[in-house]
Amino acid sequence: MINFTYYTPTEVVFGKGAEQQTASLIKKYNGTNVLIHYGGKSAERLGLISLVTQMLDSEGIKYTLLGGVVPNPRLSMVRKGIEICRANGINFILAIGGGSVIDSSKAIAYGVEYDGDVWDFFDNKAVPQKSMPVGAIVTIPAAGSEMSDSCVITNEDGDWKRGSNNNLCRCKFAVMNPEFTYSLPAYQTACGAVDIMMHTMERYFSPDTDMTLTDAIAEALMRTVKDTAYDLLKNPNDYQARAQMMWASSLSHNDLTGCGTKRDFATHRLEHELSGMFDVAHAAGLSALWGSWARYVMNVNVSRFVRFAVNVMGVENDYNNPEKTALKGIEAMERFYHDINMPTNISELLGKKLTDAQIDELAQKCSRGDTITQGSFKVLKMADVREIFALANNA
Amino acid sequence: MINFTYYTPTEVVFGKGAEQQTASLIKKYNGTNVLIHYGGKSAERLGLISLVTQMLDSEGIKYTLLGGVVPNPRLSMVRKGIEICRANGINFILAIGGGSVIDSSKAIAYGVEYDGDVWDFFDNKAVPQKSMPVGAIVTIPAAGSEMSDSCVITNEDGDWKRGSNNNLCRCKFAVMNPEFTYSLPAYQTACGAVDIMMHTMERYFSPDTDMTLTDAIAEALMRTVKDTAYDLLKNPNDYQARAQMMWASSLSHNDLTGCGTKRDFATHRLEHELSGMFDVAHAAGLSALWGSWARYVMNVNVSRFVRFAVNVMGVENDYNNPEKTALKGIEAMERFYHDINMPTNISELLGKKLTDAQIDELAQKCSRGDTITQGSFKVLKMADVREIFALANNA
Repeated sequence: MINFTYYTPTEVVFGKGAEQQTASLIKKYNGTNVLIHYGGKSAERLGLISLVTQMLDSEGIKYTLLGGVVPNPRLSMVRKGIEICRANGINFILAIGGGSVIDSSKAIAYGVEYDGDVWDFFDNKAVPQKSMPVGAIVTIPAAGSEMSDSCVITNEDGDWKRGSNNNLCRCKFAVMNPEFTYSLPAYQTACGAVDIMMHTMERYFSPDTDMTLTDAIAEALMRTVKDTAYDLLKNPNDYQARAQMMWASSLSHNDLTGCGTKRDFATHRLEHELSGMFDVAHAAGLSALWGSWARYVMNVNVSRFVRFAVNVMGVENDYNNPEKTALKGIEAMERFYHDINMPTNISELLGKKLTDAQIDELAQKCSRGDTITQGSFKVLKMADVREIFALANNA
Repeated sequence: MINFTYYTPTEVVFGKGAEQQTASLIKKYNGTNVLIHYGGKSAERLGLISLVTQMLDSEGIKYTLLGGVVPNPRLSMVRKGIEICRANGINFILAIGGGSVIDSSKAIAYGVEYDGDVWDFFDNKAVPQKSMPVGAIVTIPAAGSEMSDSCVITNEDGDWKRGSNNNLCRCKFAVMNPEFTYSLPAYQTACGAVDIMMHTMERYFSPDTDMTLTDAIAEALMRTVKDTAYDLLKNPNDYQARAQMMWASSLSHNDLTGCGTKRDFATHRLEHELSGMFDVAHAAGLSALWGSWARYVMNVNVSRFVRFAVNVMGVENDYNNPEKTALKGIEAMERFYHDINMPTNISELLGKKLTDAQIDELAQKCSRGDTITQGSFKVLKMADVREIFALANNA
């Protein structure tokens, strides 16, 4: 077990009517001039824009609206947000949406407090020293950005998608009303389930295997997400199921499921290149790649995959053949992904196969031209990354 | 599922050598003049007093030492601490110890910022509005006070033991090195296991039974604590087992295991009267009472006790006889308590039975003369409380 720090200062207000507390939370965290940052129509359709602006009006809190964040949030929007914050003396950002909106807000919050180019933080040229406070009303349970230290932005100049991790960007508060997620289409609900599963799996498949409490919690969370995804296919308006999924999304990426274990975010890194280049849904990219990653790395520590198969996927343990049990676990996971209509290879993801040149480009980008490695369960060089992309292409 | 808030701002620094970060953590949270509050010899024997004072000296941070906190920490010590803080211009309290020391520190932190009598907060005459910052080096995994909003103090004038819950008292940081717990006697290790189990059980046995993620996490934690307690009986110097137990103690009482469920801290409240009157170890009081509480209330929702029996205690489910399965779960829990040498009735706890007059007094105190109720799984009036004490007395 490795040493760890655990720091989750975000004040979560969870349940029916939670949004009514938004203005008082903004005041509590000293917001007097707010950027309300959101995506498109869903924040309006849910009535959140009018509710929040009315609440802020009645509290005498100034605000500026900035909508239009898209999935795989863009650097150009971040730059626009920084300009608006500076021009208007904004001192608090309220994100209304899912991971894309929250990440865009976090990046703006970094950029406002930095004299250089905000992309420096994503390009490893600088480390954030300060950040404007951000709060969130969560409408999509998936990324878990509302409690995480993570922020991922896509730079359209060259299709680079890069993440930055820093405690400074953790949200001051997160307002979560599961009812807001009733109207999510089945596809987006499924994407959320994949993203949540992956955030925990990428902490669970660790070279350290001696933090049993963390493992037990991670397995409990993954089993719950799987069961809940099936429940939601049947009944999208099941409050209890929506609540499980929403709370799981936060716990899955606030580090709880990785205390004492090394992370392995290789699948995420590979996927960032895919969705940076093809603008596919992040979760769809993850489900298309995971099985290939798993088969490529499983022999490094097959017992870990056996544990996953048995404790999470309910596979019967074949004690004489651990490799077979491990493979059955991977296949069961892929069956689950198929059941919720998610892809498990690149053809299913893109509707076509990649060319060799495209695979080369993805591997090049992901390894920065073979200058960095990815993952820790098995440390992946450019050739390994290329092989995983190729496996997913031919699966 | 009920609405909830979840707020755990404590920065946890966990693992070997974590204590080396104490001075920098105090600086981070603006401590310049520190009360170092501790119990007795263990903080000295572990070398923590000399290590911390050396670190503070070299950082130019002033400090005052106040040792002597005892289990069931006393109001007189709290009052002494408040005086010392005021006389010395203290602006940060560092607790070195377990729950008693941390709770004593929290109460001092409240009292310094309050013009009235600090006992007002425990007697429900006032609500804390402010608190001095507290940080902790944890040496006993049990109470989970390092991440909780809870503070329990015993007023020697009348043997009152009372708790106060408020987010203001959550520690700024918690330094946790499992190696510090190697030297804990088996009895104290067992007491810790009971306390940790009970903090989760008193959230798990809830009238709400539809927060499956919380239930799954709670069950994962309880199974781990049970297994780990047996491991530590065999090998007290097992780092990994000590680490599980230590982390479980924090997660068990930081509210994670109660998100979306109503709490039922009836057994704690009953025990507070017992340890207030007889000064027994808190955890021993809990284990002596729990089985009697469980038998008295189980028929309110027998399926909850069946779930506990099957998912936590590994009892086989007798689908034709849920009551039998539930009872087997309670018996299995009592067997576990016996295995780790903890009492399961009052005779085992005190070495004698209570008199009827003593049972009356305990029931009177616990119900404030039948003016308040305890618990939520089954709401207990004075007569119910009396009956549970009597059951535990005759078990």
